[in-house]
Amino acid sequence: MTLIDGKKTAAEIKEEIKAEVAGYIDEKDFAPHLAAILVGEDAASETYVAHKESDCKSVGMTTSIYRRSKDVLDSDLLDTIDFMNSDDDIHGLIVQLPLPRHINVDRVIDKIDPAKDVDGFHPVNIGRMVLGHSTYLPATPYGIMELLRRYKIETSGKNVVVLGRSNIVGTPLSIMLSRKANPGNATVTMCHSRSAGLKEIAANADILIAAIGQPGFVTEEMVKDGATVIDVGIHRVAAPGTKSGFKLVGDVDFEKVVRKAAYITPVPGGVGPMTRVALLLNTLKAFKLKTGIS
Amino acid sequence: MTLIDGKKTAAEIKEEIKAEVAGYIDEKDFAPHLAAILVGEDAASETYVAHKESDCKSVGMTTSIYRRSKDVLDSDLLDTIDFMNSDDDIHGLIVQLPLPRHINVDRVIDKIDPAKDVDGFHPVNIGRMVLGHSTYLPATPYGIMELLRRYKIETSGKNVVVLGRSNIVGTPLSIMLSRKANPGNATVTMCHSRSAGLKEIAANADILIAAIGQPGFVTEEMVKDGATVIDVGIHRVAAPGTKSGFKLVGDVDFEKVVRKAAYITPVPGGVGPMTRVALLLNTLKAFKLKTGIS
Repeated sequence: MTLIDGKKTAAEIKEEIKAEVAGYIDEKDFAPHLAAILVGEDAASETYVAHKESDCKSVGMTTSIYRRSKDVLDSDLLDTIDFMNSDDDIHGLIVQLPLPRHINVDRVIDKIDPAKDVDGFHPVNIGRMVLGHSTYLPATPYGIMELLRRYKIETSGKNVVVLGRSNIVGTPLSIMLSRKANPGNATVTMCHSRSAGLKEIAANADILIAAIGQPGFVTEEMVKDGATVIDVGIHRVAAPGTKSGFKLVGDVDFEKVVRKAAYITPVPGGVGPMTRVALLLNTLKAFKLKTGIS
Repeated sequence: MTLIDGKKTAAEIKEEIKAEVAGYIDEKDFAPHLAAILVGEDAASETYVAHKESDCKSVGMTTSIYRRSKDVLDSDLLDTIDFMNSDDDIHGLIVQLPLPRHINVDRVIDKIDPAKDVDGFHPVNIGRMVLGHSTYLPATPYGIMELLRRYKIETSGKNVVVLGRSNIVGTPLSIMLSRKANPGNATVTMCHSRSAGLKEIAANADILIAAIGQPGFVTEEMVKDGATVIDVGIHRVAAPGTKSGFKLVGDVDFEKVVRKAAYITPVPGGVGPMTRVALLLNTLKAFKLKTGIS
């Protein structure tokens, strides 16, 4: 059994990015710049944005946070995006989600210049992904593709089962893995809460991807011997007797499934760090496209 | 066994469209207008465009064909699209494919105003389809969804297997059938030439969709008893002794598979007529969006 070490892999990629960014700073005297819009004061969103900021700093990228009150008008938010779209010094532009309910999130995302949409959420970038064209891939699926690539896990012709069909994980990952590419060329089945015979389908997977959002959902009998298991879930569950009183678990019953899998991602330290590094890869790409480095 | 009569269903939909269009002509004195660009003199393309023209006329829609020589410059073609984009009297705009090799087809499609892209080929419209937003669906998958809807074939929770991953049929259909919608909510597996165990996967399908482009590819043993079989293929094969010397067949070995299927589309007269009518539905939609009819 091989533990897929997302933490280590992400650290390696960050070193690669850091060296590349340092080169651009030496050569051009400026660095990739990620700008984030943060609306309101949601604690989780604050944490996520702080992580993104520190990730950027750790590789030498510039960041800026545009804060808006939770009562911001739609029109003001759209104007802010317009302003940032036209600022040539900003290469990547993200809007931290979720937004307050009164905001039309689709209109906000549609407003982002696709060339700066390093979250890969803009419809035109999703369409490009479907067509197999160069684009910004959404962070979590992108991170998973990098793990498969770097661990040399064969996907061509394999049965891949994706549990969950969210717009940011299950759906784009299913599409990416079915493209004529490497990793890719897989036979992909996307399951969800309404899928009949889900357990049997999962048990037939060469590569099983759990992105269903339920702690311990994937049990031993749902995993084929020798399968690769990628766990996208991250949940805080009570753990009496530990110092913090809780622990982090994924969508997979790790302790038992680890006995059957050939490759498996842990939680934490699997997909999570790769999701974070994927945003840096996209920001670097946006910078290179803008500055004409190919 | 129920034969899914695409010819009859398409004729019914055309009557519905015709009545609606007649109402707009009475009320507003103008009709939906589909404009097509035809480059070169490819015989098959000529036929397809002639069909589109006659389909439009038969429901009271206006059509116009913009012909360009096979040597047209990229820039001239893009200018033509620009001109048509800005013509308020044109509601739907299509470019007949394939284009001559010297033309960058992606740039051409990107140039079409997404609001007029009634082929549903523009990346932003593909992205909207992935997100489940209102958009123009590509004609063949749209036609198949209409057949499933009108024949009340349950898709929710069912195993759907799509053979083929083309950008215009297999891929969009897989996405549509997995969305939270009706038809939809299916467990979709997309197979292709590199899929291992393709026959066994097909034989497990409640709904099997053949879009792999090989005459008679789907044999009896690949079909579960009581399955729904949708045949997207259309091939001209030699038929000695017939008047024309050929006959049309699909990707399915119809004569044998028909004994096992609960529902099946014939070739011809199944998916083909629905593909044609889907373009009319999209053109009608473009007209209604433009003129503010909801």
